[in-house]
Amino acid sequence: MEMKDSKITRPDPALAARERLLVAGASVFANHGYGGASVREICELAGTSSNMIHHYFGSKQGLYDEILSQFSERVFTVPIRIISGAATSRENLTTRFEIFLEETLAALIANRDLYRLVVRELVVFPVFEAYNQQLVSFLDEAKNAGLVRNDLDSAMLTGMILDRLGNQILFASWIRQTSGYCVITDEKYRKRWLKANLDLFLHGMLVGL
Amino acid sequence: MEMKDSKITRPDPALAARERLLVAGASVFANHGYGGASVREICELAGTSSNMIHHYFGSKQGLYDEILSQFSERVFTVPIRIISGAATSRENLTTRFEIFLEETLAALIANRDLYRLVVRELVVFPVFEAYNQQLVSFLDEAKNAGLVRNDLDSAMLTGMILDRLGNQILFASWIRQTSGYCVITDEKYRKRWLKANLDLFLHGMLVGL
Repeated sequence: MEMKDSKITRPDPALAARERLLVAGASVFANHGYGGASVREICELAGTSSNMIHHYFGSKQGLYDEILSQFSERVFTVPIRIISGAATSRENLTTRFEIFLEETLAALIANRDLYRLVVRELVVFPVFEAYNQQLVSFLDEAKNAGLVRNDLDSAMLTGMILDRLGNQILFASWIRQTSGYCVITDEKYRKRWLKANLDLFLHGMLVGL
Repeated sequence: MEMKDSKITRPDPALAARERLLVAGASVFANHGYGGASVREICELAGTSSNMIHHYFGSKQGLYDEILSQFSERVFTVPIRIISGAATSRENLTTRFEIFLEETLAALIANRDLYRLVVRELVVFPVFEAYNQQLVSFLDEAKNAGLVRNDLDSAMLTGMILDRLGNQILFASWIRQTSGYCVITDEKYRKRWLKANLDLFLHGMLVGL
């Protein structure tokens, strides 16, 4: 699992102490994992005294939980909203599905250090379950509307999409090393990558394509 | 990344010393990574004196290279052979493609501890490149034969297939925890999983489906 891309980020000193602890904590947890992160290192990086974690979050675990909760909100809220409500036409379905893929990938890229952390530590999120469930429902509703093939296994397609998007982040340095491409740093390639994958997903799901 | 599923395997004492070192080394490397593995632990587990690694493999690195080379042979040789040579008909294409998926997944399951190790350590294999290239060629040949859509991006479909198969191994305990399913231990589910994914891949690639 790639860990070497993440760097220690010093929080903006203009932020309030609670915010500085969240930024510093995210950086230290992402680099060392939950077990390897020390309260002292987080507080030094945040420029606070070490009882501030206790004051704001109760404990190291409390800080970690708050960081993961913020992470899952940031990554999943927008994509979930985009596919909420049944598709009204084939054009509406494909457009929203494309935006959904783009926004999920963009959110994972923006939060990649924490995403690698949660995968490494096998964290289970309620919001991630909601995201999964929303995509399954969106596909099932589109089946009922005759837009998606009836024999499509919506849960399998959902799993495939998430595998595909997530791995571009998890294995970015490996992919770069073997193929020369990187969706994180190369916007042109990211667009090409999204288009080709959208094409595969749509062929896998639509009626009469 | 999941590491807790692997267990230390003591080699069969009836094996020759060189073989015992390969089995013991695979187990220790899979559990502790290359950096964390000690020559002493490997030799103790193999029941050999510690200069035997030097004798047979030159060094710890030499043993590691030999283990990875055996691993990549074991995992990729059969699948590569299955898709060597152009598909002769649609039926021939879909049958061989199905067997290719089954055999790749079975080989990854059988060698899952080492597979997790190579992913964690981002090892790049020549044989894995050959496997990728063979699948791209197989799809391109099927395009020329009019069996696969001309506008399919063969490299993208190849990447998607490998993401999908590999993640079932890498994230088996996570998937089990969130969905209750596991392709490694549940053969019936593995068959269902393969069938549903085959369906998606075929719809993504075939002409007139």
